[in-house]
Amino acid sequence: MAGNTVDNTALLAELQAIVGASGVLQGADMAAYEEGARYGQGHARLVVRPASVEQVQAVVQLCAAQRIPLLPQGANTGMVGASTPDMSGTQIVLNLSRLRATCEVDAANRSVVVDAGVTLQELNEKLEPHGLWFPIDLGANPSIGGMIATNTGGTRLIRYGDVRANLMAVQAVLMDPPGEVVELGRALRKNNTGVDWKQLLVGGSGAGAIITQATIQVHARPTQRATALVVPASDEAVMELLQAMERDLGDWLAAFEGISGNAMQAAIDHVPNLRNPFAPEDAPDFAILIELEANAATKYSNLDLQEALNGFLEDQFESTIVNAALGNAQELWHLRHSISEGARALGKPIAFDVSVPRSRIMEFCRQGRALVARDYPFLTVVDFGHIADGGVHFNVIWRKDAAELYDAAVVQRLRDAIYTMVVQDFGGSYSAEHGVGPHNIAYYRQFTPVLLQQWADGWRERLDPQHLCGTVDLGVAK
Amino acid sequence: MAGNTVDNTALLAELQAIVGASGVLQGADMAAYEEGARYGQGHARLVVRPASVEQVQAVVQLCAAQRIPLLPQGANTGMVGASTPDMSGTQIVLNLSRLRATCEVDAANRSVVVDAGVTLQELNEKLEPHGLWFPIDLGANPSIGGMIATNTGGTRLIRYGDVRANLMAVQAVLMDPPGEVVELGRALRKNNTGVDWKQLLVGGSGAGAIITQATIQVHARPTQRATALVVPASDEAVMELLQAMERDLGDWLAAFEGISGNAMQAAIDHVPNLRNPFAPEDAPDFAILIELEANAATKYSNLDLQEALNGFLEDQFESTIVNAALGNAQELWHLRHSISEGARALGKPIAFDVSVPRSRIMEFCRQGRALVARDYPFLTVVDFGHIADGGVHFNVIWRKDAAELYDAAVVQRLRDAIYTMVVQDFGGSYSAEHGVGPHNIAYYRQFTPVLLQQWADGWRERLDPQHLCGTVDLGVAK
Repeated sequence: MAGNTVDNTALLAELQAIVGASGVLQGADMAAYEEGARYGQGHARLVVRPASVEQVQAVVQLCAAQRIPLLPQGANTGMVGASTPDMSGTQIVLNLSRLRATCEVDAANRSVVVDAGVTLQELNEKLEPHGLWFPIDLGANPSIGGMIATNTGGTRLIRYGDVRANLMAVQAVLMDPPGEVVELGRALRKNNTGVDWKQLLVGGSGAGAIITQATIQVHARPTQRATALVVPASDEAVMELLQAMERDLGDWLAAFEGISGNAMQAAIDHVPNLRNPFAPEDAPDFAILIELEANAATKYSNLDLQEALNGFLEDQFESTIVNAALGNAQELWHLRHSISEGARALGKPIAFDVSVPRSRIMEFCRQGRALVARDYPFLTVVDFGHIADGGVHFNVIWRKDAAELYDAAVVQRLRDAIYTMVVQDFGGSYSAEHGVGPHNIAYYRQFTPVLLQQWADGWRERLDPQHLCGTVDLGVAK
Repeated sequence: MAGNTVDNTALLAELQAIVGASGVLQGADMAAYEEGARYGQGHARLVVRPASVEQVQAVVQLCAAQRIPLLPQGANTGMVGASTPDMSGTQIVLNLSRLRATCEVDAANRSVVVDAGVTLQELNEKLEPHGLWFPIDLGANPSIGGMIATNTGGTRLIRYGDVRANLMAVQAVLMDPPGEVVELGRALRKNNTGVDWKQLLVGGSGAGAIITQATIQVHARPTQRATALVVPASDEAVMELLQAMERDLGDWLAAFEGISGNAMQAAIDHVPNLRNPFAPEDAPDFAILIELEANAATKYSNLDLQEALNGFLEDQFESTIVNAALGNAQELWHLRHSISEGARALGKPIAFDVSVPRSRIMEFCRQGRALVARDYPFLTVVDFGHIADGGVHFNVIWRKDAAELYDAAVVQRLRDAIYTMVVQDFGGSYSAEHGVGPHNIAYYRQFTPVLLQQWADGWRERLDPQHLCGTVDLGVAK
């Protein structure tokens, strides 16, 4: 490991003086901080775990003075390699998970001031007694700081928006002037007093500044839910169904998750205790997991959400938009959340987190599957996604039982082909909800106008002139 | 007029060659473009009205080459003087109201691509046949470009968000390279591929670049509405009522508008045909106009929104949170929208478009009224606002019948006192939904950390190095 060649004696003492002996990790203790959830595997020089903003400030001042690169890290659940150090062994991982003393709920303002290291789950536990929650839903337990750095979307975006839509303010420790704390925004829903600078830290993959605290809008907890797994009569029927739902049940639509036949089969074949909701001979090519949520007291509205959903779906049967519908929310979400595990059991996943205008999402899936079938017949598409917000996890599996051996060059060609189709043919995005990071930086350079890369240069110069903070540089490649 | 001293002969011919003879206005024809809705009264060198992006590009190139300052203008309904030229007579007003050829609805994507000069009303007329609307509601008919430049909020923010929350993409013509067209964003709900640059043009008061087109998310039109004017039992009851509504009727809460007794009285006294909903002896100190909206087919949910609201309010009577409630939506909104006219009839309004965390909004109004009563007893507070989003139009009237003559120095002292209270004591904003503009630039300098003004310098250097575009410079005062 490159890190071993550096003499850390003096640095270690300086860092320990700031964060205490237990706040600095080295050697084998760093392993969990060096490997990412999906991509990213590197070597840290040291791992530092400050427990207060003042400690973050002091660490930043030290690193800026000695020109030591810093890698801010939350719960390290990111999907694009932005939360793990590179291979150089020169970066200090600034892990923020001990920064979690503050979680102040203002119930009347429906907002919370929360330290960057607090996890989504902890936050929701704090909010529950107030009848509130932060409804962004995803298959991990990230930290709040990490959620801002990736602008997390998840399965309920259509009802609640992404992190950006719920972010009132950000506190960050700057690289220039080193260690300066800046407050961007306030606990306000209306505030138009110049450039909204916090927006530049949202989805920024942790580059340029250390997010230490945030003020976020939270929501009233739902009083009812209703769930169904439906089989649309055709690809065309999917949008028809979605538009009908937004017209007739629009107040409650929270999730509209597409699951391809392959995705369902992979989960059922490989995840224990997962019941196939369909008889084997009825296995559909495509199904949609629908969830409604309500914030409505039944005493005033007599609302029975499941009854409303069932009535709506009966009419869709009659107009042949929907072929079948099944219940049991817990089982259905278990199925939905088992897809990734099923896919991994099938072979090595090649993940695509893409989005297109949702009006073209079924067309994209069709063309994408056709491309793989034609050019890569030994690969299996296991696609699923958030139809209502245009996001698709168009994942492709290099099956364990494939005759061809895994070949990184083939994977690269596939990536190029799918992303080109998404971006150029469908007006879509090569990274819907996971950000850029080292994993997507080559596509950032390919698809981002040079002018905007130059703008990023200017912003980075202003924010972090020594280029010390984070793994990716969105400026023009030097 | 300063403009008269400049020889426009050559410039006029060059501009006419680009936009046609009818596309350039001079002399008295410029009057409507030189005076703003509330603040702003200046002199233009010429008014140019391009009808295509190509024409905007050519005008920008011409102005950049000759270093002629440009003032982008939409429907000129802004409230902070940012849409009118300064007094120098050197600026060309670039009015964009002829840029309105494109208004392409993608109903399945619930999005629309719309030229900057299209007005909100025109947009909604185009959307209606699709069962869609752009629900941002305010007392004017702005252009889409202007709505982006001010990040319009309005009375329904709590249900639909502001312009920023619904903005998918912006097309802009740049000052550097002069006339270059840039597309920021796509027709996507999930797209995290680097810095989201369009955010810097939102609420930017038109500085630095010309917004020519946008892609915005639109919404299904409501199927039902319910309205009531309620009298809370106390200031404390207001937040209690709001929280109960978000818990019990949260799916439908669209507006929660506070109206002070003075505001109601001013409207009733001065606006013809306006009926007082209360008997004179029952005139309340404070009332709340509540509106619910639903996107729900009654055939599935049996929802009767007015019945749900009435049932809820009956329970609030019993728990003495609410003292009275009255119906008739049209009359109530007419009352709400008549406040400004009533206030103007009463005297000269000194307008405050402020916001605070909504949990402290009643406390702020109380303290603000007490400050005026103590230090400015000859002034009358006519406050009303959007309680649920924390915004207050804390307007103060210099009555026509006041013994003291209007005195700009007194107004200045009042402004300083109220804004200081808002920003320093309440963590609020001196401009909730109208932006900065020349009207608020002094408070921007006072309340914005110097570091953020320096960031604005860097951004302006990048975007508009000759400082030609717009009325305000958010950088450090030179």
